[in-house]
Amino acid sequence: MRNIKLTIEYDGKDFNGWQKQPNKLNIQGEIERAIENVTGEKVELIASGRTDAGVHALGQVANFKTNSKMAIEKIPIAINSQVKKSIRIKNAEEVDENFHSRFNCKRKTYRYVIDNSKYGTAIYRNISYHMPIKLNVEEMKKAIKYFEGKHDFKAFKSSGTSSKSSVRTIYSAQILVEGDNIGIDLTGNGFLYNMVRIIAGTLVDVGLGKIKAEDIPKIIEGKDRTKAGKTLPPQGLMLIRVDYEK
Amino acid sequence: MRNIKLTIEYDGKDFNGWQKQPNKLNIQGEIERAIENVTGEKVELIASGRTDAGVHALGQVANFKTNSKMAIEKIPIAINSQVKKSIRIKNAEEVDENFHSRFNCKRKTYRYVIDNSKYGTAIYRNISYHMPIKLNVEEMKKAIKYFEGKHDFKAFKSSGTSSKSSVRTIYSAQILVEGDNIGIDLTGNGFLYNMVRIIAGTLVDVGLGKIKAEDIPKIIEGKDRTKAGKTLPPQGLMLIRVDYEK
Repeated sequence: MRNIKLTIEYDGKDFNGWQKQPNKLNIQGEIERAIENVTGEKVELIASGRTDAGVHALGQVANFKTNSKMAIEKIPIAINSQVKKSIRIKNAEEVDENFHSRFNCKRKTYRYVIDNSKYGTAIYRNISYHMPIKLNVEEMKKAIKYFEGKHDFKAFKSSGTSSKSSVRTIYSAQILVEGDNIGIDLTGNGFLYNMVRIIAGTLVDVGLGKIKAEDIPKIIEGKDRTKAGKTLPPQGLMLIRVDYEK
Repeated sequence: MRNIKLTIEYDGKDFNGWQKQPNKLNIQGEIERAIENVTGEKVELIASGRTDAGVHALGQVANFKTNSKMAIEKIPIAINSQVKKSIRIKNAEEVDENFHSRFNCKRKTYRYVIDNSKYGTAIYRNISYHMPIKLNVEEMKKAIKYFEGKHDFKAFKSSGTSSKSSVRTIYSAQILVEGDNIGIDLTGNGFLYNMVRIIAGTLVDVGLGKIKAEDIPKIIEGKDRTKAGKTLPPQGLMLIRVDYEK
């Protein structure tokens, strides 16, 4: 069987998250239905990981197995013609039969966007989180550096996850400012449930002066969820890219 | 009476354009209704110009007269609380009683965004126009320069406008590339009906090799609408800013 790796962009606003669930519009189900229409086969689409309702992806990766002989460059067009416009297959490639989008994932990059304008944005309201109080970006830049490295991120996960270990490695953590937008970019070997949204909430508390940048190591070491910031809403979050060993 | 100048951002997707019309959701009517709720007065909101259904604005300017004594910094918050989230008042300032958003306008800047990716974008689909065929950007950059200066733009206007003269001055015309996006930025003393969308359509024809860059002056001089490109759809267009004499 062929193993097809898809790169997928989606607007999370229109869906109840990635994962298939009955009677709720979801990205996995929408694409699986399209693949079935196109190939005549029922497939299971395996993503690098789920995303929650409202979370966006610029480069989610997912794979499926098929006996279809369709030319690889036709696959994105064929699937795109069968899904809502809030999903676009950006690339399809044939990969080794053992390739698994979740197990083989080496790195993920997420971005959380805070709209720090006084009155909010109309056009970008569904892809950012509005914080009208001016944040101290310099303090946030100091604080975010403490997240880099291998840590137990227990204080930065929501309950309800099955993952055994809460140790993760963040390779790169940075704040990018563009106009009124503050982008929080995190690249790591994996992320716990709500981890990026909780780190973003903690950094907002730093920007507001509620938490000192230097207190971040203590909060990480304390492993106490109540000492970190709140979970920011989903619409500010975007899965930018997923990387695999070449 | 006080004369209040508003700077307004809106997501054009949700509206039948700026102009007030019965039984159709429009931006002018929505804001006038909000101002009436806030001040108790019926007002007329005068914009720098209309925008069509689907066209966005990052910095539309409009003014209205009022006897309200509300503090100027409270006005954006008060209006924003009464309008849809697809409209945001970004600024309010008190101006001279003779200030008129349309008559006093000196310069407008529009941007038209072409998404030149192969399969299109999901997240930004309502703020760009998808052209899957790779455009020759270098030729487009040559072509756009011919639009700068004072010209009779009769070939670049749709019928149905009341403006007597079709002579306009374009101060700056440039192509900006960011990833798969091609932005067409035009600053001028005014624009005819659909002028930016027709210029953008003509530049797409240049990018496709259907029109040569060097033929643009001939098309301008010919004043024949049928020789220019087609009118591109509204969702790619955004009114970026409106300038006035200081």
